[in-house]
Order: sequence, then structure tokens, then C-alpha cells
Amino acid sequence: MEQPFVIVGGDAAGMSAASKAKREDPDRDVIVFEKGRWVSYAACGMPYYVKGEVEDLDDLVSLTPEQVVENRNIDLRTDHEVVAIDPESETVTVSADGEEFEQPYGDLLVATGAHAVEPPFDGMDLDGVFTIHDMDEADAIERYVTENMPETAAVVGGGYVGIEMAEALSERGATVHLYEMLPHVLRPFGEAVAEHVEDHLREQGVNLYLDTPVSGFKGEDAVAAVELEAETVPADIAIVGVGVAPNVELAENASIELGPTGAIATDEFGRTNYENVYAAGDCAEATNVVTGESDHVPLALTANRAGRAIGQTVTGTPTRVGEIAGTAIVKAFDLGAARTGIVDKEAAREAGFDPVSVTITDETRADYYPGAEELTATLLADRGTGKVLGGSVVGREGAKRIDTVATALHAEMTVTELQNLDLAYAPPFSPVWDPILTAAKVLGGKLE
Amino acid sequence: MEQPFVIVGGDAAGMSAASKAKREDPDRDVIVFEKGRWVSYAACGMPYYVKGEVEDLDDLVSLTPEQVVENRNIDLRTDHEVVAIDPESETVTVSADGEEFEQPYGDLLVATGAHAVEPPFDGMDLDGVFTIHDMDEADAIERYVTENMPETAAVVGGGYVGIEMAEALSERGATVHLYEMLPHVLRPFGEAVAEHVEDHLREQGVNLYLDTPVSGFKGEDAVAAVELEAETVPADIAIVGVGVAPNVELAENASIELGPTGAIATDEFGRTNYENVYAAGDCAEATNVVTGESDHVPLALTANRAGRAIGQTVTGTPTRVGEIAGTAIVKAFDLGAARTGIVDKEAAREAGFDPVSVTITDETRADYYPGAEELTATLLADRGTGKVLGGSVVGREGAKRIDTVATALHAEMTVTELQNLDLAYAPPFSPVWDPILTAAKVLGGKLE
Repeated sequence: MEQPFVIVGGDAAGMSAASKAKREDPDRDVIVFEKGRWVSYAACGMPYYVKGEVEDLDDLVSLTPEQVVENRNIDLRTDHEVVAIDPESETVTVSADGEEFEQPYGDLLVATGAHAVEPPFDGMDLDGVFTIHDMDEADAIERYVTENMPETAAVVGGGYVGIEMAEALSERGATVHLYEMLPHVLRPFGEAVAEHVEDHLREQGVNLYLDTPVSGFKGEDAVAAVELEAETVPADIAIVGVGVAPNVELAENASIELGPTGAIATDEFGRTNYENVYAAGDCAEATNVVTGESDHVPLALTANRAGRAIGQTVTGTPTRVGEIAGTAIVKAFDLGAARTGIVDKEAAREAGFDPVSVTITDETRADYYPGAEELTATLLADRGTGKVLGGSVVGREGAKRIDTVATALHAEMTVTELQNLDLAYAPPFSPVWDPILTAAKVLGGKLE
Repeated sequence: MEQPFVIVGGDAAGMSAASKAKREDPDRDVIVFEKGRWVSYAACGMPYYVKGEVEDLDDLVSLTPEQVVENRNIDLRTDHEVVAIDPESETVTVSADGEEFEQPYGDLLVATGAHAVEPPFDGMDLDGVFTIHDMDEADAIERYVTENMPETAAVVGGGYVGIEMAEALSERGATVHLYEMLPHVLRPFGEAVAEHVEDHLREQGVNLYLDTPVSGFKGEDAVAAVELEAETVPADIAIVGVGVAPNVELAENASIELGPTGAIATDEFGRTNYENVYAAGDCAEATNVVTGESDHVPLALTANRAGRAIGQTVTGTPTRVGEIAGTAIVKAFDLGAARTGIVDKEAAREAGFDPVSVTITDETRADYYPGAEELTATLLADRGTGKVLGGSVVGREGAKRIDTVATALHAEMTVTELQNLDLAYAPPFSPVWDPILTAAKVLGGKLE
């Protein structure tokens, strides 16, 4: 008898794989072990729960455990932690209710996700100091805000999480201080975006501390202040969002190979170094479409898509997990900022390119049309080949236009090809030349 | 001495060519003959002038004649009509102030544009019956509305112009009756879009008459009613928007060849059958990126781009005018609708494809995020090759997402490649799977 398809982790990658496998082959047994109680939830929505725009934490759950079991016929076991994988005997060891048991697998998917990095700050264990990576943390932050009505909030880290939480906590009435140890926020988005976002954060009343490492938190039982090198700043709540790291301990202990980024190495089908062991989602690497190299960009779409492909592969239809462009978008108060591919010249040089870039600002609609907003677009290309390497946009509307650049990256377009795209124009939607086309036009001029 | 670069027509294609040629080679003489008084104007903005959202007609002018002459050093002659082209002697005959003269050219660009089709209706010459294709017409309509405050308006034709004018005249207080002889409005956008737009027009109080040919207008001096086969409907103003036709008489008389669409035939550099005679904009054909065939889609971006390329070519840098995908977008009250490539199955079959299509409806943002709207997306692909052929979208936001499909068409992507694009996701901007990806995923399933 065929052994079941066993999945470690019940969020985006795991549940996508389980659902797809069951849909393709309803007779195949699919078991999902989830160590917590939440499955299939939208982690990206958590800041909006804290902000108060999403009323109920359950609204972030796309499938309840009951739906998974009843409608999809998946054998889902929450509060079951896989503590070991044995690729030789093709079994996993599962811990639940204080007991352990072995579960054989035919195919295995490691979808263990990532965790928030906890920096070695003093006072990380004080009440009111949080990271935000899972639903219980979101729940705890929301309750803490509701109960304590913090007047001042410290957000440590100027990545997406930091910026989204700055918005959320401002909305909840706190004066927000945002600390970033680097010279700019949103490093992967490049300087042009960072400067716009920084100006906007300040306009919105956020106290921005750039180039400012935090050394710890102070307080009796609960956090009361943030310690910097030069000063101490009051804080009634602190959110630490300094990045995430893949959960690879289980894989490493089973001699599943990690890649150069420290996440689990996979081939184009999401396979690890073991024929019937796959990895997907925030714990796994993916191939970057611009560099052709392994990359680790833990985002929801990548996890969903890879999980779905693996569900198809293990039920008999080999399906590629797809490449990533590192496309990302973030809301910062009234601004949208987005990026794809390689935005930074230094990173382009490291990947072997000879980068040329432009940054232009144009309108999102015809300039005479009401509601037109400025959009600033950056494009990067390789001088030798003319290939587009990446780009960014930032503005009060239109940030999704990054998708045009992302699509161009997948198609390995040159700047000339990008410039010649027949994009949609009418006065309420775009200038005649969409800002992406204008950026390509100007960049084309620099490449001549 | 090199003869000047002579341009017939001072709108999008003509002025783009003139400006680019002067920028590339400031010593080259560039003469633009424009038979009217308006140059470089945004015809697409005219409905919004009538609506009252654009205050001044001059706001639609991107360059005044004075700016053209003084800042760009272009020899612009308004109120100068080219009445003949002689490709053998390389001269044009120009009529101005009741006199005619000859002007030799080194290179010639025919950018004569298009005109609104005037159907053979009774009463087309009544006061209050308008077509809308140039600025004087927009001006006249606006004045007529202001002076007569029409209670009922007839809009004949359910294309972009008709729909934009229905919105404009509703806003100005008229009860609008829209007459379309075909079963649906917005024929090039396909049925899924048409049905959404029709429902929305009705919600907005527009009286929609589908499958309803108009036979004429009745009234004393001014229009008072529209005559249909079965009834007569009151109308205090009538806008006839039943399509445009290229202005090719001048070219035809000079043995410049027309293509299968009836517009001027051009090669990839915008050249006609005469080596140094080019054509661009609404009077010229372009190559369709999906079919590889000649096509005539008179839109602003195509005109601007082709003009610009020709300005570069005639000054020594041969530059392709680019292919078109027939991408278009239109606002219909609160809806945006867009299309690209081939949307209609019958048209796909005529072009030699075996079309498979899907229409899906999904949200524009994460479903739990405030402000999420429905977006309906249609995708068409060829069964044999899996190539994407075209698509459409319609919804209250997100219509510019058609650009992703347009980009995919230029890259000749398959449905699988489209489905694997790394597009931007965050809850305020998109569901995890952008609706375009969802459409591709579902279409992929149908192609398996």
C-alpha cells in the first residue's frame, strides 16, 4: 500500500500542497502535522488586525481546521509537532499530548516556515515587548494595546513589518518611534523608495531614528523605555521586527541539505536532496529569475505556489514550483511602495552585472485628470545586454504597476522591449506613457 | 543642402516625431503643417472637459504652439493644410490664407489622424447633433450643454466615446439614452466586460437600448428626438460616436499604399511604400503582436511611440515603431474596463488559433481588507501552444492589471508562464494570487 503524503506545517505551503494533492488524487492519504492551533492563516494581515481594520483574528483564516478535514478530506492534526525526520526509514516522529509516535511517509513536504529573529537585546522578556510572526503574537499585541492604551510605541526595524506596525500603532493612538540601524528603512526597496517613505513617515508623525542601533529595553515588569547608545526613549510597548529566519533545525538534523542562504535547498520541483522529500514556503530556497541563483524571499505567494506545485508533483504530474523575482509591495500609511528583481546597484554588481539605473517621477493619471498622484519609478538594467534587472515604485496610488516590471523580468526583456509595451492608457488611469514606460524610455536613452 | 523633415499633422504622432527629431539633430529643419489651430492635444481628455472635471480646454494641450516654436525650435504652421503630396518630386502642396505653395521634403511623415464616422442619418445637420473627435467639437458640445441645459441626451454608439459621453452628460444633469445597434456595448472588450458595464450603466440611470439601430434625428432647427424603428425618443442633444476612420485621402491620391484595414500600410520602421515617406498615428496601420498581422487601433500611445521612433529614424538612428497589443482601458462611471490582445473566441479562430477561455471573479485586495472590490478577469489562450492570446478585466478598481497580460503578450508567454509570475502581494493591494494569476491558474487547468 502506498504510504501517505505527509506534510510538516499547516500554513500557506503545507495547506496548498495538501489541498492540491487531494484534489488531484482523492484516494491519496494526506496527513498534515501542525504544531500550533492555527492553519491556513494570512500572516500578512496581522498588522491590520492590530490596527483595527480587520475586526476578528479569525477573518485572517482562509480555512478552518473543520473545513480542511470535512470539505477537503485532509487528515489535519493540529497541536502535533514533528520532532524528527528519518529519510532512511521514511518516517517522521510526532509529538502530541505528551506522547511520541512514528508516522511513515511515501512523500514528505517540509513546510516549517520561518520565525522572527530575536536580537540579543536586554529586556526582550519584559511584558509589552513583542515580535510579530504568528497569530498568537498578533492576538497578544492587540490585547496589550487594548488593555494598556500605550502612549508611546517603539518599533525596532524599518522593514515591512516595522512600517506596517508603525501605521497600526499610530492608528491606535500611540506616538511611534521607529528605530532602524541602517541609514534607510526598507533596504530591499532601494534609496529612492526609502527616502519617499521616510519623508512620509515623518509627515505622519512617526519619529524616525535612522542609523540608530537599539541596545535593549528597560522597565520593571513591563517595558517602559528603549535604550539607545546616546539616550533612553520612553516606550509603553515595543515591537521588534528585525527580520525572519527559516525554520531548518528539523531538516538539518535529518541531513536535508541547506543552500547558500541558510534555507533548505530545493530543485525546480521543490525537491530536497532526498528524492521523496520536498520543501516549500518560508523555510525553503527558490530560484531567482534575474540571477538564476538560489534565493530566500519568504513571501506568501511563493509559498502558496510552491506548495500547490508539489501537491501536483506527488500525485503524478511533475510541476515546476516556478522562479521568483523577489517582488514585494508594502503600504506605509498613504503610500504604496513596491520592488522587484535587483534594485540596488551594488547587489547588481555582485551578481555580475554592469548596472545602469534611472529614477523618474511622473503622474499616475493624465496630469489634467482629477486625483492624479506622483509616482516615482526606478529601473535598473545591465549595460552589456540591455536586460532589465529590476525596479521599484512609490506613490499614493499605482504601486501595483511593479507587476509590469516583474513580468518583464520573467520574460528577460530588454529595456527597449519594456519601453515598447502596449500598456493601457486613458486619462483616469495613466498618462499616455505609463510611468514604467517613461522610466524605460529614459533608461533606454542612458544605454545608447 | 538637406531638405527638411516635413510633417503633415500636428497632434500626437506628428509632434512626437518633430520633437524627437529636433532633440536628436537640432540642425535638421523640421516643419509641421497643421490644418487646424490645435496641436499636441489630448483628445482622450475631451469627455472630461464636457463633464466639467477638466476646467479649461487648454488644460488638454500639452504644448502650446508658442512652446513648440520657441522651446523646441520647430517650424510649426497652424492653419496650413497640406492638399497634395508628390512622392516623385518629393514635395507637398500647402494651402494657407487662400494661397497654395510647394514645400520640398527630405523625409515626410503623414500623420493626418482619423475622423469620426458620420453615419447617413436623417437630421445629422440639426443643431445639437455632434460627433466628438477634435477640440472644436468638444468646445461646441460644452457650450451647447451650458447654454441649453439638455434634459435628455441621446448617445449613439456604445464604444469608449459613447460611454464616456454618457457619463459626462449624466454628470451635467441630462437623462441619457444610449443606443447601440449590436447586442452589446464595448464590443472589442468581449461579453464579460460588456455585461458588467451594461448593468452598471443601468444602475447609474442610463437608458440602454441594445440591438437598436438609430435611423435619424428629428427637430425644427435643433434636435428634439431620436428616431428608432419602433419609436421616437426625446433628445435635447445627440452625440454620435460610432467609430473613427483613418484620414487617408491625401495618401491615396499620392499612391501611398493602404493596408488591409484601410489605413496606411507601414513597415516596422513606420515607412510606407516610399523610402522617405512615413506614416504614424491614427491614419496608419501597426503590427499586432498576437497575430503578427497588420492592424488598425487608433490610440494615443501608439501614435506617440511611432512618431517618436520615426523622429529618431529620420535623424540617423533606425528605430522600430513597436508592435501593438490593442490594449485599451475605459472608465464607465465607477467601473474601469480594460482589454488586450484577442478577447473574442471568434476573432481568435479567424486568426488561426484554437481558443480556450475562462472568466473568473476575484477580489482586488485580500478579502478581509477594507475596500476590496470584485474584479472579473477573462483570459484567452491557444489550446495547441498554450500561448496567451488576450484578456480583459472589469471592476471598480484594478483595471490597470491588464498591463500584466499585455506584457505577457509581448513576451509570447504561455498560460503556465503567466501563472508562475511573481506578482506583488500585500493585503491592501491584492489577494495572494492576483486575479490575473487566478485566471491563469484556472485556464491552465482547462488546457491540461
